[in-house]
Parts: sequence; structure tokens; C-alpha cells
Amino acid sequence: MNFSSKLLENAVDEMSQLPGIGKRTALRLVLFLLNQPNSQTVKLSRSLLDLVEGVILCKNCHNISDSELCEICSNIKRNQSIICVVEDIRDVMAIESTGQFNGVYHVLGGKISPIEGVGPNQLNINSLIEKVNSSDVSELIFALSATMEGDTTNFYIYKQIEGLKINITTIARGVSVGNELEFTDEVTLGRSIIKRIPFENSIKNIS
Amino acid sequence: MNFSSKLLENAVDEMSQLPGIGKRTALRLVLFLLNQPNSQTVKLSRSLLDLVEGVILCKNCHNISDSELCEICSNIKRNQSIICVVEDIRDVMAIESTGQFNGVYHVLGGKISPIEGVGPNQLNINSLIEKVNSSDVSELIFALSATMEGDTTNFYIYKQIEGLKINITTIARGVSVGNELEFTDEVTLGRSIIKRIPFENSIKNIS
Repeated sequence: MNFSSKLLENAVDEMSQLPGIGKRTALRLVLFLLNQPNSQTVKLSRSLLDLVEGVILCKNCHNISDSELCEICSNIKRNQSIICVVEDIRDVMAIESTGQFNGVYHVLGGKISPIEGVGPNQLNINSLIEKVNSSDVSELIFALSATMEGDTTNFYIYKQIEGLKINITTIARGVSVGNELEFTDEVTLGRSIIKRIPFENSIKNIS
Repeated sequence: MNFSSKLLENAVDEMSQLPGIGKRTALRLVLFLLNQPNSQTVKLSRSLLDLVEGVILCKNCHNISDSELCEICSNIKRNQSIICVVEDIRDVMAIESTGQFNGVYHVLGGKISPIEGVGPNQLNINSLIEKVNSSDVSELIFALSATMEGDTTNFYIYKQIEGLKINITTIARGVSVGNELEFTDEVTLGRSIIKRIPFENSIKNIS
């Protein structure tokens, strides 16, 4: 692209570093900002800088937080002995929005992926093992993505804490609620037949 | 969405003000920035602020520029007597990238659109009329979008300069190069039959 201004080119270059934003989209966004009052760009820049400079990770669960201990970890109404292991904070937000979980979280910050060069040491796994060993944990729930990497990570953690007297569970996998059977992928459908549950159980816990 | 951090929420809110970026995408972008070195966010913010604070519009053609007169207007090799009228700077970039135009531009900054409350006075139309009246303009090329608003704007400008001894042209409309006829929309195809041109003309100017 021929830019008539170096400033414009710089802004578009920086904007197109963001994932999923190509040069054309970046240009559209930047020109949009140029058409708005300068205060909008100032607010956007300020909020991003404030975030990266001021963000704190909860020292207990590694969730993004405004204080040393996040709202969930410091909430005495939540069951601190049930820990849900998730990849990142978006998963915390997703589970929180269901309103179905009253325990606490542990954010790994990713999953083990040799291809992307992510090993156990790049993740918050050690602090999880320590937590499980030292404090009064009754259940560990694996809520990672249902992918090879997710399964590998689950298994790695499982091996580290095998033998401890805690429940280790994983979130249920199967046909999505509301899904037509014919449109469900084969692997999911196959597994959900093998892992079928007593019908009584399926109606018991629905609130 | 339940945000665990006010800083995060602010950043997502500001990011989602951009066109085509919803809350979820904004969250993804912001979390991406959080995972990068802080310097990337600093560079992004700095480039946006530099742009909105330092941007100059060329005093002649209203194109975005780093100096008072843009590179195109100050280029003595370009034919200053042929002016191509466009909506915004993206159109300048699009036409420049064809390498087929050696005149100069005039950026209107939009098109007349009563629905969006844009009248002639919000656009750079007066300066165009002045330019046409005062300097040595031989041709004015309308290169606005082929929409109702574009046509209205063309017509409005045409009415202001009707009678002056200059060529007023508009870019050719018709079937796109490389397009299959059967997939061309009816209006375009219909017009391109009515406005058919001698075959000799169609092969003359192809370089």
C-alpha cells in the first residue's frame, strides 16, 4: 500500500500486529480514529497502557486482578477446596457466566504444546501442585480444551498428583445442549454413546 | 461479561468502540497485547497518538500528509491540471496503486448524505469549486462510489461548475475485468450494454 503519510503508515503497521487484523482492516480502524475526536484515541491508548502497566495477576490463581488476591479467591462464600483448572482468563469468564460453579480457579496460562514450544515450566503448573500438596483441596476439576494439547496437559498434571487423596474430575464431554444429533461430529457422538450415563443421573442435577 | 479487573474492562470497552470490533474480539485483542512485551502496546499507543496529534491534511487536496503540501501535490511531474475527485484517502491509495493516473486528487472527506446528516458544507466542496475557478484546471474526474450518495455529490458539484470551460468526466462503470457475465449484477450489466463503446476504443488504451 502507498501511504501518503509516515505517521499513518506507522499506525497501520502497529495496528496490523494484532491477531486477525490485516493491513486493510488496520487502515479502516485507524482512519475511523482519525475521524473521531482525538479524545477517543487518547482514551484508547491510555486504557491499553494502564492495563499492561498496572495489571496484577492474583497470587493464588493467576487470574487477572486489580489487587493481590482476586475477587474470587478472596470471596469467603466460595468453596476454596474445589479448584477448577483452566487455560486462560477467558475460560474463567465463560465458567463464571454460567453461574454453576462455586469453587475457585487456577489459571495455567496456556497448555502444554511442544509444537509451539510451550512446556510445563512455561505454565503455572508448579504452583498448582504446591497448592494441592499444601492446602486442603478436596477436588480438582480439569476444564481445558478438548484437544490433544489439553489432554496432554491434564495427563501431565494428573501424573504429578496421582495418589493424593483428592477427587480428580474433568468437565463432561458430549452432545451440546440444543444440538441436533445429525449435526454432531462423529467423535463427540461416538464418545457420548460409549460414556452414556444412567438417565436418572441426567435429570437429577438440572436446576 | 464478568471482568475480574477494572483495567481490563476499560481496555476492552475502549477497544470495542472501533468499528466491527465487538466485546469478544476486543477481549481477544487486549489479552493478546497482555501476552506480548509491554513495548508492543507502548508502540501501538504511541503511533496512534502521534497520528491523531500530528496528522496534517494537505492544504491543496486534503489528503493525509506529513507536510503542508502532500507528495502528490508537490510532485512537479504530475499533471496539476487534471483533478480526480474522491471520497477519502483510501480511494487515493486505491487509484495510486493502479499506477494509471498522473494527475492530482481532491479528497472530499465523504459524500452528500442527508440520511447521515452530511451536507455539502461538511465536505471539502467549496475549496474544490474555488480551485476550479481560480487555477488552470483542464479536467475534473469524478471517482466517487457508484451509489445514490455518490451520484448526488457528483451532480451537486457539477451544477456548481456547469458552464466553465473544463472537461468533466466520471470513471467508467461496467463489467469488472475478469468477471464472468453470468455473475455480474443486472444493473451493471444492463448499463454496460446501454453504454457500449466502439470495440476499437476498448483496445486502444490498454498498455
